[in-house]
Order: sequence, then C-alpha cells, then structure tokens
Amino acid sequence: MAPFTDSTTTLADLKARVLAFVRARDWEQFHSPKNLSMALAAESGELMEHFLWSTSEDSKAVAADAAKRGKIADELADVVIYALEFANITGLDLAAAIEAKMAVNAKKYPVEKAKGRSDKYTDL
Amino acid sequence: MAPFTDSTTTLADLKARVLAFVRARDWEQFHSPKNLSMALAAESGELMEHFLWSTSEDSKAVAADAAKRGKIADELADVVIYALEFANITGLDLAAAIEAKMAVNAKKYPVEKAKGRSDKYTDL
Amino acid sequence: MAPFTDSTTTLADLKARVLAFVRARDWEQFHSPKNLSMALAAESGELMEHFLWSTSEDSKAVAADAAKRGKIADELADVVIYALEFANITGLDLAAAIEAKMAVNAKKYPVEKAKGRSDKYTDL
Amino acid sequence: MAPFTDSTTTLADLKARVLAFVRARDWEQFHSPKNLSMALAAESGELMEHFLWSTSEDSKAVAADAAKRGKIADELADVVIYALEFANITGLDLAAAIEAKMAVNAKKYPVEKAKGRSDKYTDL
Repeated sequence: MAPFTDSTTTLADLKARVLAFVRARDWEQFHSPKNLSMALAAESGELMEHFLWSTSEDSKAVAADAAKRGKIADELADVVIYALEFANITGLDLAAAIEAKMAVNAKKYPVEKAKGRSDKYTDL
Repeated sequence: MAPFTDSTTTLADLKARVLAFVRARDWEQFHSPKNLSMALAAESGELMEHFLWSTSEDSKAVAADAAKRGKIADELADVVIYALEFANITGLDLAAAIEAKMAVNAKKYPVEKAKGRSDKYTDL
Repeated sequence: MAPFTDSTTTLADLKARVLAFVRARDWEQFHSPKNLSMALAAESGELMEHFLWSTSEDSKAVAADAAKRGKIADELADVVIYALEFANITGLDLAAAIEAKMAVNAKKYPVEKAKGRSDKYTDL
Repeated sequence: MAPFTDSTTTLADLKARVLAFVRARDWEQFHSPKNLSMALAAESGELMEHFLWSTSEDSKAVAADAAKRGKIADELADVVIYALEFANITGLDLAAAIEAKMAVNAKKYPVEKAKGRSDKYTDL
C-alpha cells in the first residue's frame, strides 16, 4: 500500500483505517461519544504541554525543533485519530461538517470586519 | 464547487480551504503553535460539554438526537479545523503523521494482547 | 510546621505556600494568566486520563483503587495548585469568587426546578 | 454568615458549602469521578478561552480588564468548585494532597537547578 499523504488521502481513507484498527481489537464497545470526547480532550492537553511556558512567538521554534517535532506530530495525530473515530461511531461526515462550519464562520467573521483582528465575533 | 464529503475530500483539500479562510482575514499572525493548541483544546472542551452528565451508554442517544446532532458536528468540526491549521502552520503532513502514529499504536497494542481490553499498553 | 489538612488550612495559607515555591525559583516571569490557564487545562486532561474508558459507575472503584489513588490525588493537586497560582498573580480572592459563583448557580438552578435533574439551566 | 475570603475560609468550609449545594439538588448521583473530571476539564477550557489570541504578556491586561475580570473569576471558581466536589466524593483531603505534591515538586525542581528556568524536570 502506498504511504498516506495529505494530497492523496481522503477522510474516508483515514476513517476506514482507524475503524479497522479499532475493530481488530474489539474496541468499539469502549468508543461511546462521551468516552471519545474525553480521549480527544486529554490528547489535546498533551499537545498543549509542549508549549506551556514558551511565548507564542517562541512556540514556532519549539514546533520546528528536530527533537520535538516527531512528538508534536504524534500528539496532533492522536487528536485527529479520535476525531475520525468519533465521526465513525456517530456516522458524521466530517468533511461536510467542516464545510458547513466554515460557512457559518464566514458569516460570523466577514472579511471586511474581521481582517487583522482576533476579537470574538460578538465584539466585532 | 462540489460539496465536500469524506469520500471525495483529501486532507490537502481541507487544509487549503482553512488556509484560504485564514489568509483572507490576515489571521496567520495569531496562529502560532501555542495559540492553536489552546484553541484546539478549548474546542475539545466544548465537544465534551454535550456529554458531561450522561452515562457512556446514553451518550450515543445524545449524539443521535436531532436537536443536538448539528451542534455536536459543529464542535467536532472546530476541533479538526484547528488541527488542520496547526498542520498548515507547522508544515506537518497530517495523513503521514496519522499513519506513523497508528504503526506505533499497533506495536503498543498488539491484537492478541489488546483484544477486548481497555487497559493502557503499560498494563497489558 | 503542622501538616496541611482541609480543616485547618485556609486558601490564603495555600496561596502563600504556592507563591513561596514559585518565587524561590524565580518562576513568576512564566506565570501569565494565559500560561497558567493552559497549564491548568493540561493538568485537568491528565486527571481525566484515569477515567477515559471506565463507565461513570466504575470510575468510583478506579478512584478508590489503592494503586491509583495517590496518582489521582497528585493530578487533582496539580490542578488546584495552578488555580491558586492563577489567583495569586491576578489578585483574585478565590473564596469570594467561589461564593459569588455559587450564588449565581443557586439562581440558575433553583432547588425546586433542578432537583434530581442534570439538565443545563437553559433546559430546565 | 460572614462572607467567604481567602484569609478566613478553610478548604473544609468550601467543601461543605459545595456539598450542601449538591445534596440539596440530589446531584450526587451524577457526580462520579469520571463525570467530575470531565466537567473540571471543560471549565478549564472556558477559562483558557479568554486568553487564546493574546500574547502571554498581554494576557495580564486581559485578566485586569474591568469588563472581563468578573467572568474570568467565575470560570476559575467553576474549576475549583468541581475540584472541591471531586475531593468530596472521593474522600480526598485536598490540602494534604497539595502539600504532598509540592514536596514532590520541590525534589523534581530543586531551587539551584530550576531557578529562572521553565524546562521540564527531565531536561534540567
């Protein structure tokens, strides 16, 4: 099988990969929405841990550091694996959900108001 | 443009979509790894909030509930949007990172040991 | 010094203890509200990790397990240490904040409406 | 009853206050360690949301801002309320747990090694 790359891999490919892994281990019994949302949040905490004490600016160098880059990629992968599995067990189409949410975001944050500003839409 | 679906959308398609949104608003200046990891974790907290007080079993019905399903899909989308943008700004190939992490997980959790068990690999 | 116990220790005692620890290490320079909120959230993720795959009911036995109890106490302590330090650096009176928030909660969740129900106040 | 302040309020006072609130609403049935750890983590996400896009330095002004200070105090209070309730239902002495964890931290981060450094103890 060819290696997975962002250019050639669909979300359905990844979802199938995750599902096969889970089913081979008979883990669907543990994968309720509640449990997966917890696991996803716990993994996102581990991703954050790499950047706790650096400034926002310095965090770029942390993410580029050869010794840390692999670990950071692992944590990001863990987050997305749980997101894919959440979509698997709830039957959500993730690409469609992202498209729908970005359409909402585009209305909340119109370019002419939001450009160059980090304010929440309620403060624009 | 055809609507996005998991079967037809690559990670590169989604990354490009998110990046175009961000650039149109001149938001790259706010998108350090530190800040994006925080945003991702905060969104994962919002996803969890839907399932705080239900049992694991009952959370399936929560996720299937017509009135809540759209909101839950929105929260999941937010999480993955930030993960995609994290990959954008750090130059990570997310599909490759997932494949690499799943290979690690397969060694940590060999089918014959892990089948039907939720223990951490250190306890198998 | 007598050991700390919940019956004899005020929040001011604990805040002073944490602040002395931080100052001895010259760590106040890292303790912005942003950084402390991240550290607190990351530690809360570690607390959750003990309960990811158990049911709500079974999590009681996990927390009572002799081998895990000390680790769980450590994670809870980490969360509260960061909360105390957050109060230190922002000048918040934590007991007053808790009292104020519980007064708000009492109005959102009046006994006669909320008794025995886990619904959010907007759904009562 | 005198208002609660950090100088005059023990952890036992606060734990009793939270427990009375919970019991009046018959909410102990929902308060497993699993559920409380999720609620605590979700609230810590809400605390973080105030600081997502500001720099570490600028987050001090955010926390001091008159319009935001009350909301930030509320989020911090929510986190600690759940921590107190977690201690209630698991029978943990929180002050003792904090003292024990700080003793561990003092060994991991001896003053002479850790002074002025934000590195993890494994990197000191």
